[in-house]
Amino acid sequence: MAQLLKVQNFNVSSDGVAAGEDQSLELPFGIVGPERLFGWAGATASWPNRTDAGGSRGLDDYFTRDFSHNIGAEIMGRNKFGPQRGPWQDDEWRGWWGDEPPFHTPVFVMTHHERPSFTLSDTTFHFVGGDPAAVLDQAREAAGGKDVRLGGGVSTIRQFLDADLIDTLHVAVSPLKLGDGLRLWESPEELLDRFHLDVVPSPSGVTHHVFWRK
Amino acid sequence: MAQLLKVQNFNVSSDGVAAGEDQSLELPFGIVGPERLFGWAGATASWPNRTDAGGSRGLDDYFTRDFSHNIGAEIMGRNKFGPQRGPWQDDEWRGWWGDEPPFHTPVFVMTHHERPSFTLSDTTFHFVGGDPAAVLDQAREAAGGKDVRLGGGVSTIRQFLDADLIDTLHVAVSPLKLGDGLRLWESPEELLDRFHLDVVPSPSGVTHHVFWRK
Repeated sequence: MAQLLKVQNFNVSSDGVAAGEDQSLELPFGIVGPERLFGWAGATASWPNRTDAGGSRGLDDYFTRDFSHNIGAEIMGRNKFGPQRGPWQDDEWRGWWGDEPPFHTPVFVMTHHERPSFTLSDTTFHFVGGDPAAVLDQAREAAGGKDVRLGGGVSTIRQFLDADLIDTLHVAVSPLKLGDGLRLWESPEELLDRFHLDVVPSPSGVTHHVFWRK
Repeated sequence: MAQLLKVQNFNVSSDGVAAGEDQSLELPFGIVGPERLFGWAGATASWPNRTDAGGSRGLDDYFTRDFSHNIGAEIMGRNKFGPQRGPWQDDEWRGWWGDEPPFHTPVFVMTHHERPSFTLSDTTFHFVGGDPAAVLDQAREAAGGKDVRLGGGVSTIRQFLDADLIDTLHVAVSPLKLGDGLRLWESPEELLDRFHLDVVPSPSGVTHHVFWRK
């Protein structure tokens, strides 16, 4: 079976905003209260950062526990990895996730600036240049026959959509407007020329949008 | 984390019927056209019996590809294993699934009649007596810390519901009435004293019912 490129559990507001314009160490998503967008996931039993035994096992849990299903590598934009811009000043920064990142696979961070690979637990971060197609080739090679996750952020997803490289896309739309910010879309209908779409309202309040290539 | 007992992708009609009264070699479900109940699953990309590369990757595919997630053993009733009744006359019968059963774990077949275990590919079938709690203990032990799937049929699921041993239950309800037959329930509401319920209509026409223990 072909190796898919998949976006999973990506969160936007009802007006399509995924993050604010101004990211910082204090505001990784560039907005105040990003849990308003991903709180649905945090409430599930399979949320990777869960520290207690509780959590729901309804519809939303299918989405959170699918996160690692047959995934062999992740691609992320530099802004998902950290708030720095330009040449790497500080190799001490090793991502937002502490010593046990939730990826458990090779991760390819897209950047124009060289930096040596490093490993935290069972996740190895590589820093790679090149266009989306070239980065995807490297990630597929590293994935050992499994699928590749495209982790975001929003600008990276738009780049891969423009290059028509994404096979499946799951976006959870929260019932709140953010107004300004970095937008995934004006409307989900923009993708219907290339994708099938299932729109699935969840009892938690988010509406899951599941796209797959026509 | 506790080892769950899970029912997955179980199919019933809108009036709660899962199978006919009279099972036979020709009619494994005891009804004509059982694909009317599980056709939604057969249309997905992750359906285990799929032989081509097609299939949908929308909501329904989350349910089919979740089938093996963290499952270490299955329990099934004798009627899911085959149409024979009473003492085993014919050890040649090795299930409906050919040489590559879709379980890939130990499978515990509940029966009052002894029969030696056997292995097909990476599935080993054991034949066990005892009440549901005792069978579940054996399956948990064999599951190596993972969850246990309760595979059906409908009488077996009702037995385990009566014993209050089920932790999560996914039932796909098809929009057709069957009338006579073996019934899972008169109404899903019968379970609401003990379970949370998400009701999720799928664009395919089935309505997924996802229960998890309160």
